[in-house]
Amino acid sequence: MVDFIGIERVRQIVARMGTAHFIEELAGEIEADYLRWAEFSKSPRHATHSPVGVIELMPASDGQLYAFKYVNGHPKNTSVGLLTVTAFGVLADVATGYPLLVSELTLTTALRTAATSALAARRMARPESRVMALIGNGSQSEFQAIAFHHMLGIRELRLFDVDPAATDKLEQNLLGLGLNGLRVIRCSSTAAAVRGADIVTTVTADKRNAVILAPYMISPGMHLNAVGGDCPGKTELHPDILRRRDARVVVEFEPQSRIEGEIQQMEAEFPVAELTDVLAGRRPGRTGPHEVTIFDSVGFALEDFSALRYLRRIHNELQGSQQHIDLVPDLEDPKDLFSVLARESGGAVARRAAVLA
Amino acid sequence: MVDFIGIERVRQIVARMGTAHFIEELAGEIEADYLRWAEFSKSPRHATHSPVGVIELMPASDGQLYAFKYVNGHPKNTSVGLLTVTAFGVLADVATGYPLLVSELTLTTALRTAATSALAARRMARPESRVMALIGNGSQSEFQAIAFHHMLGIRELRLFDVDPAATDKLEQNLLGLGLNGLRVIRCSSTAAAVRGADIVTTVTADKRNAVILAPYMISPGMHLNAVGGDCPGKTELHPDILRRRDARVVVEFEPQSRIEGEIQQMEAEFPVAELTDVLAGRRPGRTGPHEVTIFDSVGFALEDFSALRYLRRIHNELQGSQQHIDLVPDLEDPKDLFSVLARESGGAVARRAAVLA
Repeated sequence: MVDFIGIERVRQIVARMGTAHFIEELAGEIEADYLRWAEFSKSPRHATHSPVGVIELMPASDGQLYAFKYVNGHPKNTSVGLLTVTAFGVLADVATGYPLLVSELTLTTALRTAATSALAARRMARPESRVMALIGNGSQSEFQAIAFHHMLGIRELRLFDVDPAATDKLEQNLLGLGLNGLRVIRCSSTAAAVRGADIVTTVTADKRNAVILAPYMISPGMHLNAVGGDCPGKTELHPDILRRRDARVVVEFEPQSRIEGEIQQMEAEFPVAELTDVLAGRRPGRTGPHEVTIFDSVGFALEDFSALRYLRRIHNELQGSQQHIDLVPDLEDPKDLFSVLARESGGAVARRAAVLA
Repeated sequence: MVDFIGIERVRQIVARMGTAHFIEELAGEIEADYLRWAEFSKSPRHATHSPVGVIELMPASDGQLYAFKYVNGHPKNTSVGLLTVTAFGVLADVATGYPLLVSELTLTTALRTAATSALAARRMARPESRVMALIGNGSQSEFQAIAFHHMLGIRELRLFDVDPAATDKLEQNLLGLGLNGLRVIRCSSTAAAVRGADIVTTVTADKRNAVILAPYMISPGMHLNAVGGDCPGKTELHPDILRRRDARVVVEFEPQSRIEGEIQQMEAEFPVAELTDVLAGRRPGRTGPHEVTIFDSVGFALEDFSALRYLRRIHNELQGSQQHIDLVPDLEDPKDLFSVLARESGGAVARRAAVLA
């Protein structure tokens, strides 16, 4: 029997812990894994593109545990009432190859992405940052808002989305949360939202080379948390922002980001630092108050690995509905796989019930 | 909600249909998919190796449906009471990226491997073949025996395994099936089992370059169904068998087989035909009664694609325990992912139950 964590179970776990606390603890797990970067087998994700979207498999392993995530990206899904991104994943035991856990990762990806953004911003944004522009008010936006309020001390959020209904929804959800001392301001354009911000978070979904942020919008000292550009042909920043002499770009896993990140627009030798080096202090996240720092985030398999391991631990610690699924046979004689089929026809062996507690 | 097919459900489905009939129908599905080979996006599987085994992801898509399989190979697992190979897979909708089905594939891999072996043998073995040697009497062996008895008309099976207990088990299971007119003979060595056989099926599990079949054992006219050699460093045939002037080698997907198949032992230009061409009649499976034909099978993602689609159809047609898992959120507003978490804390929206019918 394999552990199963569905949508309802994640909702239950996050509700018990509190969203902000869950994100902060998860950020700690992700940071710890980035600090042992060399122990992981890493590869760019396997992508299958179609005219309307992409389906990706993202594996990672530290030699003890193996994890992979299935994730899709279909920007037009929302027009038919479906999510742009859904995801699920599996944690397995490297020693035996047996799967240990199947888990939803749609909610969890939003949580781990916000956690990673906040982790990077703690090293890259100016410490006195209090104002954040949030461009793109869709599925990811609440998670980013909560993470930056809780982990960075953001006290003013400036919202913009081309779809005013998305901003309505975000405002409503933030109101419902009653985040301590957080001022929320709707803005009439990206430029208006970005003006005066310490941190600019972009979480837009369009699958094309968009210019969400133009060079004239950027002021010295800003930190850009560029989350939405994450596959070939899908970017958010004008390349001249990356080319600024005072810019410093940090990525998660360089070979993957060269294909999928904002830096896909740049030449192959364009200088970047990897997040592991920034977190370990081997490379600076920022060297002064006037630098423009850019976290060119695409999402890396290690973050899902951390999230799956963390979820499994919390799932086993917290009471509640713990489900199991009969994904793998349980045999008396491991060379006798056929006996599973013979169980009924033989009649001698009691019929096995699928136990779903 | 996503369909779930566990071990118990596959057992139920196969028991209702009969194993031989299930394999034959599945072979038809696999053949139909091999005949539209050009429509599939194909890639060698993604493998993560460890000192004790391998974990692989095998994706395939025809532009309408996307499938992947997770499969491990851990030869030493049986010494601790676990299966060498376990597997599961997912079928998804390319248009939306949403997963449709999560299914066990441990049993199903054994069924589809036997189906593919029989499909190839129908085009490659001499039509009058009645005697098969079955070398390796582990988890896969019953499935191969049933497929070749039912689809090829095999009437004598000659068994050998280095572990006599495995042969005991296979003999016992075959006895229990009462296969019409099948004579089962235990042999004292591979050479003794192979002597006089029309078809030789090798399904051994050792993760190394083994010589299960040596050149002196092979007679003109034999068909070799080489199933067990399926990853780098894991082969079953002495390379001189492949080098015979009267040998004809067929593989599933050439780029993958060059890495994983028996032909990993050969030079890059060693001539092979692909199964799709043989099934479509573009290349011969055999040109005369004295050729030695070799199906160098490693298992290809298309076969799992066919199996998942077939399972889903049968699952929906046949009554019985149809399970669903809450792997993906079901939202009123697809841009409001956060509302899933807010459901309880808000209290206004009724708590969602994970429906497991």
